Amino acid sequence: MDQITLHPIGILHCSLTSSKQTPKSFEESAERGILEIDEAYLKGIDGIEPGDTIVVLFWFHRADRTLLTIHPRGDKTRPKRGVFSTRSPTRPNPIAVSKLKVTAVVHNKIYVIGVDAFDKTPVLDIKNTLSGNHQ
Amino acid sequence: MDQITLHPIGILHCSLTSSKQTPKSFEESAERGILEIDEAYLKGIDGIEPGDTIVVLFWFHRADRTLLTIHPRGDKTRPKRGVFSTRSPTRPNPIAVSKLKVTAVVHNKIYVIGVDAFDKTPVLDIKNTLSGNHQ
Repeated sequence: MDQITLHPIGILHCSLTSSKQTPKSFEESAERGILEIDEAYLKGIDGIEPGDTIVVLFWFHRADRTLLTIHPRGDKTRPKRGVFSTRSPTRPNPIAVSKLKVTAVVHNKIYVIGVDAFDKTPVLDIKNTLSGNHQ
Repeated sequence: MDQITLHPIGILHCSLTSSKQTPKSFEESAERGILEIDEAYLKGIDGIEPGDTIVVLFWFHRADRTLLTIHPRGDKTRPKRGVFSTRSPTRPNPIAVSKLKVTAVVHNKIYVIGVDAFDKTPVLDIKNTLSGNHQ
């Protein structure tokens, strides 16, 4: 199959720099962060408002793309299973899906709560939280 | 920012070939389909079972990647807004997120219900539906 080329639309700024610090999920996180959107994509964030919950797709640039099986949650007492039956960041195309609460939007910066990704993680896409892919 | 290269892990087979036919969302869809996973990634689907609900990331290869504002749901009576505040397939990196119900897994084929994407849509990733990015 053909390869696909992506360009990030922005970058995450937050205080998380290691796995140890990073909440296991956005639902367990009260971490704040800023999504800095490239000026070229600024028109795309029109309509995002404080109070919204947004779905953010991140590129987990530090993830291992070579492994197809892992111990869930890194717990070696649990048998290995396929990465596609888990939410491990380890996977061939490490795209993470987070739901984040918007607290403010200032020009190209979206202030959010619920961060579960490292500082400087590239942002690939933002969607609203309504269902479906065609709205 | 650097560009990112992806290789699809598989392809969707279903009977949908046009927007007119295609449900606006997976929650409105009873369409059946098959996710055919490339043999190279077969170990990655170990642990996916009938009855599971999986999160599938698709590459919407027919989407317009150039527009940053659209009329929501294509309704021209509604004012344009930024694509990142919608779920339109139109967006710079057209990665769709669907929740699909697994009915069977036969070797490298995952049979699913709830399809809201066209036949031959590339599959980028599959995750379980538990919260978070680190399990």
